[in-house]
Amino acid sequence: MSTGFFGDIKSVRYEGPDSTNPLAYRFYNPDELVLGKRMEDHLRFAVAYWHSFTWPGGDPFGGQTFERPWFGDTMELAKRKADVAFEMFSLLGVPYFCFHDADVRPEGDTFAESAARLDEIADYFAGKMSATGVKLLWGTANLFSNRRYMAGAATNPDPDVFAYAAATVKQCIDVTKRLGGENYVLWGGREGYETLLNTDMGRELDQMGRFLSMVVDYKHRIGFKGTILIEPKPQEPTKHQYDFDVGTVYGFLKRYGLENEVKVNIEQGHAILAGHSFEHELALANALGIFGSIDMNRNDYQSGWDTDQFPNNVPEMALAYYQILLSGGFKTGGTNFDAKLRRQSLDPEDLLIAHIGGMDCCARGLKAAAKMIEDKALSAPLEARYAGWQTAEAEAMLSGKRTLEDIAARVVREKIEPQPKSGKQEYLENIVNRYV
Amino acid sequence: MSTGFFGDIKSVRYEGPDSTNPLAYRFYNPDELVLGKRMEDHLRFAVAYWHSFTWPGGDPFGGQTFERPWFGDTMELAKRKADVAFEMFSLLGVPYFCFHDADVRPEGDTFAESAARLDEIADYFAGKMSATGVKLLWGTANLFSNRRYMAGAATNPDPDVFAYAAATVKQCIDVTKRLGGENYVLWGGREGYETLLNTDMGRELDQMGRFLSMVVDYKHRIGFKGTILIEPKPQEPTKHQYDFDVGTVYGFLKRYGLENEVKVNIEQGHAILAGHSFEHELALANALGIFGSIDMNRNDYQSGWDTDQFPNNVPEMALAYYQILLSGGFKTGGTNFDAKLRRQSLDPEDLLIAHIGGMDCCARGLKAAAKMIEDKALSAPLEARYAGWQTAEAEAMLSGKRTLEDIAARVVREKIEPQPKSGKQEYLENIVNRYV
Amino acid sequence: MSTGFFGDIKSVRYEGPDSTNPLAYRFYNPDELVLGKRMEDHLRFAVAYWHSFTWPGGDPFGGQTFERPWFGDTMELAKRKADVAFEMFSLLGVPYFCFHDADVRPEGDTFAESAARLDEIADYFAGKMSATGVKLLWGTANLFSNRRYMAGAATNPDPDVFAYAAATVKQCIDVTKRLGGENYVLWGGREGYETLLNTDMGRELDQMGRFLSMVVDYKHRIGFKGTILIEPKPQEPTKHQYDFDVGTVYGFLKRYGLENEVKVNIEQGHAILAGHSFEHELALANALGIFGSIDMNRNDYQSGWDTDQFPNNVPEMALAYYQILLSGGFKTGGTNFDAKLRRQSLDPEDLLIAHIGGMDCCARGLKAAAKMIEDKALSAPLEARYAGWQTAEAEAMLSGKRTLEDIAARVVREKIEPQPKSGKQEYLENIVNRYV
Amino acid sequence: MSTGFFGDIKSVRYEGPDSTNPLAYRFYNPDELVLGKRMEDHLRFAVAYWHSFTWPGGDPFGGQTFERPWFGDTMELAKRKADVAFEMFSLLGVPYFCFHDADVRPEGDTFAESAARLDEIADYFAGKMSATGVKLLWGTANLFSNRRYMAGAATNPDPDVFAYAAATVKQCIDVTKRLGGENYVLWGGREGYETLLNTDMGRELDQMGRFLSMVVDYKHRIGFKGTILIEPKPQEPTKHQYDFDVGTVYGFLKRYGLENEVKVNIEQGHAILAGHSFEHELALANALGIFGSIDMNRNDYQSGWDTDQFPNNVPEMALAYYQILLSGGFKTGGTNFDAKLRRQSLDPEDLLIAHIGGMDCCARGLKAAAKMIEDKALSAPLEARYAGWQTAEAEAMLSGKRTLEDIAARVVREKIEPQPKSGKQEYLENIVNRYV
Repeated sequence: MSTGFFGDIKSVRYEGPDSTNPLAYRFYNPDELVLGKRMEDHLRFAVAYWHSFTWPGGDPFGGQTFERPWFGDTMELAKRKADVAFEMFSLLGVPYFCFHDADVRPEGDTFAESAARLDEIADYFAGKMSATGVKLLWGTANLFSNRRYMAGAATNPDPDVFAYAAATVKQCIDVTKRLGGENYVLWGGREGYETLLNTDMGRELDQMGRFLSMVVDYKHRIGFKGTILIEPKPQEPTKHQYDFDVGTVYGFLKRYGLENEVKVNIEQGHAILAGHSFEHELALANALGIFGSIDMNRNDYQSGWDTDQFPNNVPEMALAYYQILLSGGFKTGGTNFDAKLRRQSLDPEDLLIAHIGGMDCCARGLKAAAKMIEDKALSAPLEARYAGWQTAEAEAMLSGKRTLEDIAARVVREKIEPQPKSGKQEYLENIVNRYV
Repeated sequence: MSTGFFGDIKSVRYEGPDSTNPLAYRFYNPDELVLGKRMEDHLRFAVAYWHSFTWPGGDPFGGQTFERPWFGDTMELAKRKADVAFEMFSLLGVPYFCFHDADVRPEGDTFAESAARLDEIADYFAGKMSATGVKLLWGTANLFSNRRYMAGAATNPDPDVFAYAAATVKQCIDVTKRLGGENYVLWGGREGYETLLNTDMGRELDQMGRFLSMVVDYKHRIGFKGTILIEPKPQEPTKHQYDFDVGTVYGFLKRYGLENEVKVNIEQGHAILAGHSFEHELALANALGIFGSIDMNRNDYQSGWDTDQFPNNVPEMALAYYQILLSGGFKTGGTNFDAKLRRQSLDPEDLLIAHIGGMDCCARGLKAAAKMIEDKALSAPLEARYAGWQTAEAEAMLSGKRTLEDIAARVVREKIEPQPKSGKQEYLENIVNRYV
Repeated sequence: MSTGFFGDIKSVRYEGPDSTNPLAYRFYNPDELVLGKRMEDHLRFAVAYWHSFTWPGGDPFGGQTFERPWFGDTMELAKRKADVAFEMFSLLGVPYFCFHDADVRPEGDTFAESAARLDEIADYFAGKMSATGVKLLWGTANLFSNRRYMAGAATNPDPDVFAYAAATVKQCIDVTKRLGGENYVLWGGREGYETLLNTDMGRELDQMGRFLSMVVDYKHRIGFKGTILIEPKPQEPTKHQYDFDVGTVYGFLKRYGLENEVKVNIEQGHAILAGHSFEHELALANALGIFGSIDMNRNDYQSGWDTDQFPNNVPEMALAYYQILLSGGFKTGGTNFDAKLRRQSLDPEDLLIAHIGGMDCCARGLKAAAKMIEDKALSAPLEARYAGWQTAEAEAMLSGKRTLEDIAARVVREKIEPQPKSGKQEYLENIVNRYV
Repeated sequence: MSTGFFGDIKSVRYEGPDSTNPLAYRFYNPDELVLGKRMEDHLRFAVAYWHSFTWPGGDPFGGQTFERPWFGDTMELAKRKADVAFEMFSLLGVPYFCFHDADVRPEGDTFAESAARLDEIADYFAGKMSATGVKLLWGTANLFSNRRYMAGAATNPDPDVFAYAAATVKQCIDVTKRLGGENYVLWGGREGYETLLNTDMGRELDQMGRFLSMVVDYKHRIGFKGTILIEPKPQEPTKHQYDFDVGTVYGFLKRYGLENEVKVNIEQGHAILAGHSFEHELALANALGIFGSIDMNRNDYQSGWDTDQFPNNVPEMALAYYQILLSGGFKTGGTNFDAKLRRQSLDPEDLLIAHIGGMDCCARGLKAAAKMIEDKALSAPLEARYAGWQTAEAEAMLSGKRTLEDIAARVVREKIEPQPKSGKQEYLENIVNRYV
């Protein structure tokens, strides 16, 4: 039954913190309870099909480094790839995977042929999913690799490309629904511009708003219960991507009346590229009510492009899961590794090792975050800091019962001269270091 | 009558492109018509009081370099400073200036004393304005320098600081109105955070939304006709500023229902720090309907902090004025130089020379942009690029008359396979270089 | 005789500043004298084979966009590519081209086969060069694309890769010499690391020093008169590249005793990625005596990866040529366009238009720089600023005739209290704007 | 005896990992042996006088936040400051401190007066040091804050400033020697430029080289046994600082023949600003033989200016101490906290808490690094990776016994076609995560 790709490696199991087995979990223990919920149900791990099984190892200055037996453009090889992929999902014990249409089937000569191939592979996947119990966290359409999308998909100056993209997304939502997917993601890698000189930004935003509205309408019409997610990224491949960051996406959703319909899939690496910390983007999405899911892959802090590395810094990850727990945890979302092996990591086992390391770090981060919440380690000082806002007069200001004149008069009358208090940042940082 | 500060320098006049007089304009010719409007009325230049007359030349690693005869904390010196400032406005022939309360009067021991001083200086300004014809482009309150604001003004955890800030803004709007100011600006330099560990972002955003709503209400109540402007900046002095960039500010305005009440004052340097080009921020503000005014001071591309330099790169500035002209030009806004001399530029004449250089570059940029518009140099190719969207079927898609299923069916039926067309970026860049 | 690729486009000629012909030069006039030298001899333009003829238009998120009739892996297609390339060189009237081995011939199954193919193409080139008069500015070996180099060439942990790279460079120098190349370039795209965890930096630097020493020895042994050039770049594709910037390369050359043997080929885009302005890198190379040649392709200021765009900002380019003229101008070096078309610029004429725009901007920049030198516009103020160092006592300090004690005693004795003078930065920026 | 500033806080002691006392060490245990050496002797902690006792809490947009009873410009207050400083050193149990002349005494009206004040304070320090046992890690001169240095110290266009700086450094070395300082540091905060337009870089580098040569000569002449250290930083306050990073400083030292006389003091934050990881700079300094000491203060990854924060990310710090241990550990150098409290951290105890947190993280990092070394966790795989270079033929290549022709001939003869091996990056990252 085994494809043989992973040799004689058996299921990766939890062996505890002291294990030195590189093919065991030291912290990820699916059934362990954290804040009363199973760790697996907190983290909801997913493997990304593309990076692990389709990416050849190229970069802008070099070509293929991986030599996988399933590389090639036939449906037979696509199925062989699926065999290995599901084998890896099972070896790792991850509950979910994610895919783009372009990862799983070779492009056809026509739209119809591409669509037929996706349907065929979706059936193949359905069998695999049933056999392994692995579920679909989200599906998505690749609207950026083919040259037809070079100037955008929804935002293309050519309405035929808009139409082609719409047809593609329709099928991908259909397939996602058929496979029980819990979310559907849109990443607008080409929805932006290379130069303003040839771009009508207002028009393109309207095109993008229309496209997303049609997607939301369609979802409801067919009864797809999953969440529609936008994945922000500031740039790359474009000079500017319209879904720059969480704040920008929120404004876009508000503009087109979609803020209650669509949420965000936040990637650590994209946050960094936009000049934010990951926890900032999570906290902001939570404050704005649009937090959905995460791509837990880090960016190198010194590299100005998307490095999509497996995460490995536990203190940072603890702060991320802290924000996620504050938001109430994942609903339909999860922890996807939209991460690629370094292109020099050629061995089959490297695929497993990379995921194991990432999952273990997530588990450590989650546990630290949960403990901070249990102890009110950060929330108690936070509440104390804002306690002044509990007075009646302060509440009246905030609720709109006071005008600028009212307040100005009171400042003079009561001779208010505020005295600053310590923000205790280093103290709080030390607190966090008790947990990580 | 002269303060003597500028020695025997006489009014700076237009002498034409061939002049080598460092104290003459080579391109800024106020009465010259550009697209049928006087250049002065297009550009609406303003000098910033703070940088030119109050900043001592310090940086994080060094103290005062400028030794101005008006430095000190008395009202007498504040008036002497005003004398020099208005003398400079007149020498330069700029129609506007801008100020913060903290630039123009020494801080008092109490709110009431500070307020009284501001009123006194405002009267003094009124006399100067009447005598010179110089007008007020905008007023603003400094809600960031005093230690009371170290943890925010509207977003402070202490409601007394919120109140103090509200009272301060009320007076500054009053003064701005009294002096005929055409806009009122809010720059939230401390409205952000140093660490998420001590920050409740959702609460702070609500505080900021309430504050701005009160400002807007007050404006209407007192009949102030000027525009309320928010000035985006991503960070510095804070780690994160809530008014990160134009896209983020738009989302904020939409969230609190203020998108028709408030516009943005965009600074070139802040755009750069947020990872955008200046023209991007201008184009986006225009697309979103919130373009207001500009701070025309560049940031060094290699420096990660706010360098507030006088602008000097004409090709870039032409692209900025091109976007401004596309938006219909300034309404109440204008071109403010929120720029400081380099701290080594000690001579009085450096103040004049820096403004002259900046104004001349703006004039060149404006003229180039205007000519591109007259020639339809960029707009004709742009229109051609999107021409496909003029068909009935394309318009039906964009206006919401088609569903995803409709479109998908048509793609299959009509066997649509879009063929990409050249984006002609280099061609368009060459076109621009014909004009700059 | 024509390949037909460029349709009926004829030679690109100088038509003067008022021309609106997109296929004419407005400023590049090869025979025009600048500082007494022909413009062509100043600028020494070269076209890069790779970007213009071999790059398929891919980026990390998308594949081929260009569909060139010569794409493919046969020697016949390689010759067809050469036909078009030399046709373009002739149409543009550029005096030089540059190439990597990998651009010009398909990789063979063995080293010997690859080498034989390169020799065959070199012969083909020789014929073309003779027929057209186009010369070779520099040759180089591609030691980064093939997977064998994924962990470095000279710095590889496997000595066989070092050997393979050495053999490759040997042949490329041979071919460069045979074709009369005026320089030989080494760009160490993989000479760096992805992670320090698997890297012995000291050892790898020694490997790189040895490799370069062998190259220099070989050059002398075979009588190659060209200059050996290193092209600095800080990172990408690696996390860190050893040839980070000019300052770092200088230290490396000094360490291995090669500072009189090797010079630098400086790229504007690489300077930007390293946190420097282009003119900084040029000025530093000149100060250190290692300035060689340039790659005149800009990087987008907002993109953190190598965008390799054709240059278009004349004021910046004027400052670059100003530094080059200060260094005495190019000796064996020249102005290479290591620039690629935007991947959306699909039309054959885009290739010509991009080069025309870049060449015209260079010509404008050169002329502005030359005029500043003729007028001593910047050099006279510079000399005045440092004039104090002309005194006997100052010269004694600088030449080493004074000790710290001598000077300290004099400071006390003469009661030295230095008074700062204006640095006149804005004045000098305005001066530059008279020329650009 | 107590100054009372820290209230009733007693000595900070080691209480072990489970302590929740914010004023106790959880990991820093001075006498605990690590790799056979006392932890205190490994880490050699120092407190920086400037940031903790002199900095008023200002930033470019705000003024003083700290209100310390010793702020002011008298010698009496300077001594009161010293009392508190040495009290804090004792409370923390740190073995070292560091200072600039400008931190410890008010500037005089003349050089002679400033010098006399420094001598007086030095005597006061000597008494304190004797009483407490606290030692001096390094002294330095502040050659950047006073306006006389605005255009550089050694690199000033005015030779009188060079002389003034020389006299100042002479005295600071004298004082450092008198106080038993183990190093003397030069940070060239103004040794760079704001604009190339007014800068003669070659001349300024020569001035800087001469200055440093004089310092080295003086050191030897007076028998100062400490190490001369340069602290690299890429920019800020200048646009460009000549001591950009370790690689650049090495080239500078080689150029002026000082590479055996001077080492580097590497700051984490400066590494980040230069586009490097901290461990990169450490590894490079070690490879080049110029590693000296560290400033263990982190920079915010999202802020483009020097944030000088106390360190708190243990995994990153473990990688830094790993490189330091690889270099053989500190000789005369140590771990200085050139870190400032956040300006909102107003409480006296915040000063202690910040240092405690930083010291504890260093201790954790050191222990993790030491364990990796004991286990050969990284060194064994590293050795295996480069094992191929142990063959005679490989050694012959590296030692210079082979020419390019020799090697090329062997590649053909032996039909060498290298096969890449996995770089195992994720595996090694997982290994590190076993230790942190």
